[in-house]
Amino acid sequence: MYKSEKLALSLKHLIESGFWKANDKLPSLRQQAETSGFSLMTVMNAYQELEAQGLIYSQEKLGYFVTGDARSESNSNSVILNEKIEINSKIFRYLKSIQSEQMVPFGIAFPNSQLLYSAKLMQTLGQRAKHRLSYEQMPSLPPGNFELRKLIAQRYCMQGIPTDPSDIVITSGGLDALNLSLQAMTQPGDYILLQKTIFYGAWQAAEHLGLKVISIPEHEEHGIDLEAFKDAIERYPIKVCLLMLNSHNPIGFTVSDDIKYQLAKLLHERDIYLIEDDVYEELYFDHKKPLSMKYFDQKNLVLHCSSFSKTLGAGFRIGWVYAGKFSEHIQHLQLMSTLSVNSFIQNALVDYLSHRHYEKHLKTLRNTLKRLKNQYYTYLSEHLSEDYQIHYYPSGYFLWITLPEQINGNLIYEQLLEKNISIAPGSLFYQTDNVPHHIRINCSFEINERIQNALDALIQCIYPEAFE
Amino acid sequence: MYKSEKLALSLKHLIESGFWKANDKLPSLRQQAETSGFSLMTVMNAYQELEAQGLIYSQEKLGYFVTGDARSESNSNSVILNEKIEINSKIFRYLKSIQSEQMVPFGIAFPNSQLLYSAKLMQTLGQRAKHRLSYEQMPSLPPGNFELRKLIAQRYCMQGIPTDPSDIVITSGGLDALNLSLQAMTQPGDYILLQKTIFYGAWQAAEHLGLKVISIPEHEEHGIDLEAFKDAIERYPIKVCLLMLNSHNPIGFTVSDDIKYQLAKLLHERDIYLIEDDVYEELYFDHKKPLSMKYFDQKNLVLHCSSFSKTLGAGFRIGWVYAGKFSEHIQHLQLMSTLSVNSFIQNALVDYLSHRHYEKHLKTLRNTLKRLKNQYYTYLSEHLSEDYQIHYYPSGYFLWITLPEQINGNLIYEQLLEKNISIAPGSLFYQTDNVPHHIRINCSFEINERIQNALDALIQCIYPEAFE
Repeated sequence: MYKSEKLALSLKHLIESGFWKANDKLPSLRQQAETSGFSLMTVMNAYQELEAQGLIYSQEKLGYFVTGDARSESNSNSVILNEKIEINSKIFRYLKSIQSEQMVPFGIAFPNSQLLYSAKLMQTLGQRAKHRLSYEQMPSLPPGNFELRKLIAQRYCMQGIPTDPSDIVITSGGLDALNLSLQAMTQPGDYILLQKTIFYGAWQAAEHLGLKVISIPEHEEHGIDLEAFKDAIERYPIKVCLLMLNSHNPIGFTVSDDIKYQLAKLLHERDIYLIEDDVYEELYFDHKKPLSMKYFDQKNLVLHCSSFSKTLGAGFRIGWVYAGKFSEHIQHLQLMSTLSVNSFIQNALVDYLSHRHYEKHLKTLRNTLKRLKNQYYTYLSEHLSEDYQIHYYPSGYFLWITLPEQINGNLIYEQLLEKNISIAPGSLFYQTDNVPHHIRINCSFEINERIQNALDALIQCIYPEAFE
Repeated sequence: MYKSEKLALSLKHLIESGFWKANDKLPSLRQQAETSGFSLMTVMNAYQELEAQGLIYSQEKLGYFVTGDARSESNSNSVILNEKIEINSKIFRYLKSIQSEQMVPFGIAFPNSQLLYSAKLMQTLGQRAKHRLSYEQMPSLPPGNFELRKLIAQRYCMQGIPTDPSDIVITSGGLDALNLSLQAMTQPGDYILLQKTIFYGAWQAAEHLGLKVISIPEHEEHGIDLEAFKDAIERYPIKVCLLMLNSHNPIGFTVSDDIKYQLAKLLHERDIYLIEDDVYEELYFDHKKPLSMKYFDQKNLVLHCSSFSKTLGAGFRIGWVYAGKFSEHIQHLQLMSTLSVNSFIQNALVDYLSHRHYEKHLKTLRNTLKRLKNQYYTYLSEHLSEDYQIHYYPSGYFLWITLPEQINGNLIYEQLLEKNISIAPGSLFYQTDNVPHHIRINCSFEINERIQNALDALIQCIYPEAFE
């Protein structure tokens, strides 16, 4: 293989792996030659090869740019058809970067584990471990432990949603629930609707299943932009929506009952299915638990997905989906992938949930998260200027910050990583050809000296004038 | 919709769901009319509709039959191209049927759990539950707990296979490992090679991923038929083989080192990948552990999959794959599906495996399984005539029985189910248009009165003259 071919191949890799994105400028021929040690001629041949393959394009006097293969089609409501989705490599890099124990974990998606594993839960697990009965003859094959499903069904019933244990399928965490639901309900090439800004797992799942994604922007006030939603379902043959309406990750809003009701009406009119990602449902600060879309669901169109990851611990990998008539299909898919969900933990959770420890634990958890979120919000508000918009909502443990337009969230992420501080850059949650100027902060950690220093470093990084 | 259309649709469902298979005879028009309550005319119209759709065909005076859509192409070595694979529904029904606690579990795939969970393991879990450190900040994201991977890597090294912890990816059980490996290595439409008789999970995975399956028959003496294998890889562009060579499920044979070596040579010559399903690797009765194909792998073509499900408990859902250069791709797939594997159990297994309890446990387990398998084999041999071939091999806990040709394994399965006795019918493990005349018996249960009675009922069912 010629040097230029080899170079073209490795540059192609950078484009395909998402390191270089649509309309990114490539290094100039001279730069590339200098850093690579290849001759100018070799570099030029490689660039021309990439151009011939349609991967890059040149603009006179400006240089070479990455071709935009994710052609976007905009209208007044900014409904976007994203024809090709490639977000996976970026997320992989991010998840790897935040795993180190030295890292201050403002970037992680899970709440501080010290708030989750209660003494009672640990005690229950310890007791369970002693009893031979905990180690069942058979693993709990799909749909999972009956008693656990009964307890989960009860919780739905208490929220005004008539539910049988047979409606519930236990999954290996909430992401597994979303992914199995999407797999059961779609074929490659189907249209699905996502929020423009959303938990990256949804994008990944869509990519993996070869789905066409229509995205709608957030509404500044209502969270969901109903006009954009209407427009989208009128223009595209959408089969399934995947939405997060309570304590939205990463932004934090909870959509009002009125908007949910109207949304449900629109879904019913066209028989569009909804996968509702509701993993933060228990983390509201006010007295009233927000309703889920399942509550408004008269036609069995909603698959409601949730888990214990955000309340008892992500390490347990226990989630579920209110699968209704899709139950059997989802079980089929489980029998082909994970076979079943850890039965020891399912047994322990049955004990724990039966004794109402969970309600007490949730109350404590909500109070603690409320106190911490307020502390973080107050401190950040005091030190950042008004050019920084800190989105505060009374639930969950994320603060979503809109940076001034000139500040690149990706750069902030890279800079803080070098100081052993992780944050989640906005670019993980939406696709943009512009500079992403958002960051997400996990504020579930008590502000001790280490956290205080990290918080100050963070402020300094995004707003250098803060402490002057 | 006309009644006949409705009927045609529901009959079509029976064919598509695999309830009726190729060349099965449909009920006669009169029978169908009587049992359904439809008129003879309606039934005839429905049958004609199905015939028009090519789903059934009629033979004069004999009636209607299901069309064989899995056209098979045979040659001297019986290498078979299976164009369409639909095995999932059958397996789902089977797995559901054996879940009941009343059922005598000769049909289950897992060893008797009482032989697995040792007192030491229970103690370790109990101690782990008490310590806050067990509940990590972050779930063990892919590739999984480092210490656990180190311990697994050590075991490989001790078997003469140089292994780094970074070669290992922890998975949600062995099936997840197989499935992720196959997903990482193939694209829909790729050719893979399977054994003709094999763990049904392999068929399911292939079906799900849209792969073209080439199958080779077993060799009566060697387990693997090298001539058929050679023929298959010469005739088809096979990308990946998925094989089980140690304590093969369901038959039980272990392929010799010599055959393994020759197989490895053939794979190397053509750079064909191998996914090695080795979940029974520890359950050999003799002193020498059989070698894995990984041992003969000089070119990093083998992905070796195993788990703790058959030695410590299937309910834990902890398996792994020696993924080598496919590690990152497999981790990508995990981040899109289960996210990660239960970290509490991974932590507990680190404790357990560190203290060499595992070696002692395995020794006891092997001795017990050997004793039980011999007991079952002796008893069955004493009561069945020579027309019944009981395949005995010194490993594992399955006995595979070839019934006389006129006895239908599926019927035996149905008849025993009614007596609350489960067995695994041969039809779960291979595709055939003929009557399947094999059954698989799990013999890991101590022969108490209940098991003795069930064993007698089983013998009576397959060989009514036994106790005369």
